[in-house]
Amino acid sequence: MISAARPLLITNVRLSDDPSGQPVSVSVAGGRIEAIGPKLANLAPPPAAIVEDGGGALLLPGFVEGHTHLDKTLWGQDWYVNEVGPNLTDRIANERAFRKTSGHDAGVQSLALSHAFLAAGTTRLRTHVDIDTDAGLRYLEGVLATRDALAEVLDMQIVAFPQSGLLIRPGTGKLLDDALAAGADVLGALDPALIDGDPVGSLDATFALAERYGKPIDIHLHEPGEIGAFTFKLLLDRVEALGMQGRVVVSHAFCLGALPEPTALLERIARLRVALLTSAPPSRPVPPLKRCRELGITIFGGNDGIRDTWTPYGAPDMLERAMLIGMRYDLRRDDDLAAAFDCVSAAGAQGCGFADYGLHAGARADLVLVDADTLAHAVVARPVRKLVVANGRIVARDGVLAE
Amino acid sequence: MISAARPLLITNVRLSDDPSGQPVSVSVAGGRIEAIGPKLANLAPPPAAIVEDGGGALLLPGFVEGHTHLDKTLWGQDWYVNEVGPNLTDRIANERAFRKTSGHDAGVQSLALSHAFLAAGTTRLRTHVDIDTDAGLRYLEGVLATRDALAEVLDMQIVAFPQSGLLIRPGTGKLLDDALAAGADVLGALDPALIDGDPVGSLDATFALAERYGKPIDIHLHEPGEIGAFTFKLLLDRVEALGMQGRVVVSHAFCLGALPEPTALLERIARLRVALLTSAPPSRPVPPLKRCRELGITIFGGNDGIRDTWTPYGAPDMLERAMLIGMRYDLRRDDDLAAAFDCVSAAGAQGCGFADYGLHAGARADLVLVDADTLAHAVVARPVRKLVVANGRIVARDGVLAE
Repeated sequence: MISAARPLLITNVRLSDDPSGQPVSVSVAGGRIEAIGPKLANLAPPPAAIVEDGGGALLLPGFVEGHTHLDKTLWGQDWYVNEVGPNLTDRIANERAFRKTSGHDAGVQSLALSHAFLAAGTTRLRTHVDIDTDAGLRYLEGVLATRDALAEVLDMQIVAFPQSGLLIRPGTGKLLDDALAAGADVLGALDPALIDGDPVGSLDATFALAERYGKPIDIHLHEPGEIGAFTFKLLLDRVEALGMQGRVVVSHAFCLGALPEPTALLERIARLRVALLTSAPPSRPVPPLKRCRELGITIFGGNDGIRDTWTPYGAPDMLERAMLIGMRYDLRRDDDLAAAFDCVSAAGAQGCGFADYGLHAGARADLVLVDADTLAHAVVARPVRKLVVANGRIVARDGVLAE
Repeated sequence: MISAARPLLITNVRLSDDPSGQPVSVSVAGGRIEAIGPKLANLAPPPAAIVEDGGGALLLPGFVEGHTHLDKTLWGQDWYVNEVGPNLTDRIANERAFRKTSGHDAGVQSLALSHAFLAAGTTRLRTHVDIDTDAGLRYLEGVLATRDALAEVLDMQIVAFPQSGLLIRPGTGKLLDDALAAGADVLGALDPALIDGDPVGSLDATFALAERYGKPIDIHLHEPGEIGAFTFKLLLDRVEALGMQGRVVVSHAFCLGALPEPTALLERIARLRVALLTSAPPSRPVPPLKRCRELGITIFGGNDGIRDTWTPYGAPDMLERAMLIGMRYDLRRDDDLAAAFDCVSAAGAQGCGFADYGLHAGARADLVLVDADTLAHAVVARPVRKLVVANGRIVARDGVLAE
């Protein structure tokens, strides 16, 4: 499916932070950016190099999907008619029933969606994989197979995620332990108060397991307003006590969008280097993006589920997600749209801990070319990806995965 | 640009409300749907008819854009770098300055965006055109030229809109009068309290002018919460007193999303058959869609501005707008997504008063074919439009305007 990792020279592209529009070239070898700049324009390509004329396209770094559920998606399947009830627990129960009876294959589905992500320019991705007492590690095994199959191009982190609860479903803790042993990168968690019913016990169990494996944590916190803030403070106490600064992500964090005075909590989040993930849902409160960025909090973006039994929405297109983030926060100025793009690029890499990210010499060569005047234009127009390079390999052209 | 209005037979398409997926045919003559149904499948086409094999596509009615600003758009131009301040008045002042100095041509721009709307399946459209003391009727003249140029295919309503205020900018009332005389279909208005500073005086002037010309009204009401509700009640008093039931649209109506107890107001809106337009902005309160529909209020959708000095967002794709409406209201079930689609189709036609709308014999032949399993699938996947028929003429294929 992927080209050999031959050296690569891309000429005649533009950098979004250079308003002069001066054409630059990028040389790539061994999966890394060797050099990038105008002086390369007249260089002879290295022997055996693939040379690509960028045709004046805008050069962007490979995109980062900060939170999705590859194992759940129905991407590429016949349309799933959603008749599910409105509550979180309805959706959890419906999905467990569907998965038991439908023959849904997490390996096949995660591969199909990963291919679509690559074709649209995403080269780093964090996925939450359900671990529960019905399925055991079955979904994890499917996603691990996809990670292996795409290891040369897609940098994937797997979160072992107790979608059906941890304490309320005895046996789940042991399965999470097994999942980390089997290769999951991050320990997940879910609403310690409103799902598990015991915020202290649930958080203690989560932090203890993460500590045992030396793994970071990514917790889904849907809990609203004051109860969410209560749980958040318990979590921060544990980050501080256990030295987990810089190793915890709180996903969704709706509560931070609904507190009358969140400043003290936000300042503590910044101090403890806890990162925030938002899918920027238009129907829920969301963490205050600009205030978080001003305080130095890493806040980044993701789809959450994509076309699954939970939701019909979502697309493996992080430019579209950046646009939705921009719309959610009413970002209209070009400099504000750059912040929306940051959520699906550098801030995503920072929040997840993806190494060697960006458009600089020595970074992993993850590159996307689009026909757009400016970065803001790319976000709102979401043009087809002319070329996608992942870890130094050409993986897609004109939106279509390379053979 | 458009094919002659020859009879047309489209075979092998599916109806979204028929889960059997049984193929049907549609015969079209004189710009109207003659017949639609499975029995046509084996009919010989009428003499000289164009025959199109729908290839199993889903058949949808032409889409309705309920609120846009064709005269403002920068669609197809070089990217406009937005550095505008955050307030409504900043945006109004910035746009007036831009239009004075940039050579922006409302005729050229409205035609470009109308073409894009047609290519993406919109066949009926209501556009608000700025009338102000700087430009007089200049933008209106440009949009009237576009309406004339596309009269055979695009059913366009023009709202004469005092974007810079009515009472606060003396001379505007006379210009609105001239605009209605020159061919505008609807009288617009803007924030009678918070822009004009005199809700009674502003509404009285608007209703008097509408009455003089026998024209309907479409008012932009951004006023929030209690002040918005106050203005809304004054407006309803005038609808009732002047017999304007069924002839007034309130656009945006953010206030209806922020009142603790809107039921009495909503019931009066329903009783007076005032319709509501929403662009479903994710960062603002919005009227309660389901409650409105339950009460029998016509609520429909539009982009508002598309890529102009106000906003970088928007696209001439009403399936995308339906998706954004669905996301804003957290509509996940297929039956709820059908309501989102209704906002950009039948409810839009009802709210604007576009005649002979729909997929039935005698309706104007406005048809869109897409490759999608179901209506909900079409809304979230927004597939390329395989075929667009407007007023019985083929106007676009595979997303591209016909020659």
